[in-house]
Amino acid sequence: MNKDLKQYNEKAENLILEHLSGGNISDVIRKASTYSVEAGGKRFRPYLVFATLKSFGLDPAAGLSAAAAVEMIHTYSLIHDDLPAMDDDDYRRGKPTNHKVYGEAAAILAGDNLLTESFNILAQDEALDADIRIRLVQAISAAAGQTGMIGGQMLDIDAEGKDITMDELVLIHRHKTGRLISAPIESAAIIAGADDDTKALLLRFAEYLGILFQIRDDILDVEGDMSKTGKLSGSDARKGKVTYVSTYGLNGAKEQLDLLKVEAEGILESLSSKLDTGELYSVLEMFAVREQ
Amino acid sequence: MNKDLKQYNEKAENLILEHLSGGNISDVIRKASTYSVEAGGKRFRPYLVFATLKSFGLDPAAGLSAAAAVEMIHTYSLIHDDLPAMDDDDYRRGKPTNHKVYGEAAAILAGDNLLTESFNILAQDEALDADIRIRLVQAISAAAGQTGMIGGQMLDIDAEGKDITMDELVLIHRHKTGRLISAPIESAAIIAGADDDTKALLLRFAEYLGILFQIRDDILDVEGDMSKTGKLSGSDARKGKVTYVSTYGLNGAKEQLDLLKVEAEGILESLSSKLDTGELYSVLEMFAVREQ
Repeated sequence: MNKDLKQYNEKAENLILEHLSGGNISDVIRKASTYSVEAGGKRFRPYLVFATLKSFGLDPAAGLSAAAAVEMIHTYSLIHDDLPAMDDDDYRRGKPTNHKVYGEAAAILAGDNLLTESFNILAQDEALDADIRIRLVQAISAAAGQTGMIGGQMLDIDAEGKDITMDELVLIHRHKTGRLISAPIESAAIIAGADDDTKALLLRFAEYLGILFQIRDDILDVEGDMSKTGKLSGSDARKGKVTYVSTYGLNGAKEQLDLLKVEAEGILESLSSKLDTGELYSVLEMFAVREQ
Repeated sequence: MNKDLKQYNEKAENLILEHLSGGNISDVIRKASTYSVEAGGKRFRPYLVFATLKSFGLDPAAGLSAAAAVEMIHTYSLIHDDLPAMDDDDYRRGKPTNHKVYGEAAAILAGDNLLTESFNILAQDEALDADIRIRLVQAISAAAGQTGMIGGQMLDIDAEGKDITMDELVLIHRHKTGRLISAPIESAAIIAGADDDTKALLLRFAEYLGILFQIRDDILDVEGDMSKTGKLSGSDARKGKVTYVSTYGLNGAKEQLDLLKVEAEGILESLSSKLDTGELYSVLEMFAVREQ
């Protein structure tokens, strides 16, 4: 990540943490909500807002509330995903999961809170016109809800233990993870007042990023374990999950990744007459070669 | 309820049901979200939007998206409240609770979905100016989040099995149930472009309504059971809950209710120069004497 832009990630985190302290009437909700935000993470999503705004020649600070909102939604989805009734995970990022620390009831409510307050942060951002803000609420809620992330999460749960095709898997990924990778890029385009063509190209670029993200995840699941265990079997294989690696093999998945990267570069090429695409090339590179 | 206004409740429900069908990529999410909306309920909250708009002499239809959003948030909070990790209820309104029918994972996600899509419905309502819509998102998210309902829910969970004072109980009620009774009235005031004085008086009226609602709940818990069992002990008493009845006795609680009703009528009196308060008097009466 570009150092100049990374500082906006810190500002977005501070905005979230300040918001969670302001007026919160329950100490437990404040602590439980804050805990998962402070647990860290790669912060790819807020970074995408800032990188895209920079490609428009705009001040990344204009995207702080949108970046905060998307990261809060990502964080809430992890808290609820980790619950016993969902993935039942005890650890995330090396720390006990939210419900392990605060109990299930507080974890459910902390997740609900981050989701609710994400829209409050957006609505409160008076630096943006009301028209821009309402379009951000619309785009981000659409990406997070039944036509996006939540729809994809449910399809994923439904698919457990079933033989699914690669097409079905792609549909799940496009929604479960893809839409919340597109949302920050779409948000930046809304803030920038992008014309329809530019926005459409950016959204296509974002869709490639989302698939790249998933393929890289599947590769890391194998190679990450290899570096530790010397074996080819990661947790996906143990769970019998259909992945890019299980379908195309490790080399096949890498070839897919390279191919999609070339296509995404083609989209950036088309955008280069309108945007300063340097930062978006870096983002693409980052998604394709990330080690974590 | 006034028949003319009640038809808008049906329109709000239809708006919700249509929205839940539109573009939803998961059948399970659509069914589980729809199930709890269709389970019925008293629909007091949407009605408050319409009654308040009518008192401004406005078309109640202007409040359809706000009414839908508030009812969706109320419904999601019931789904999550009923979960095993929260109140662990198997039945609500005589029907199996959401997680009993669809499983816990789907119930968590259906709740998340109703919350997310409540803001999407608001954001999409192009009949309202963007400025009005963003103020609705702000007011409703504030009522539903850490400074409102969710904060109150957590305080309520924290208070279980503890001796709490009447002041602490009122704080819990004002947030847990009160804020989502104020939100529809505040929403109508925003849509109507009410001046600050009118809005402040309406919010005070709404606060009285919220407390009245709770006292009546506590009374019904006792009298409802009496009519069936002939005994004075309702479920609140069995759970050892601090209520208005446990604190003031049944007659004392009724006196409190009458007293607060007179004060609320005083506020409507002050509003009568600006609003046609007839419908709001009916709402007050309905809250004070309701049998369910």
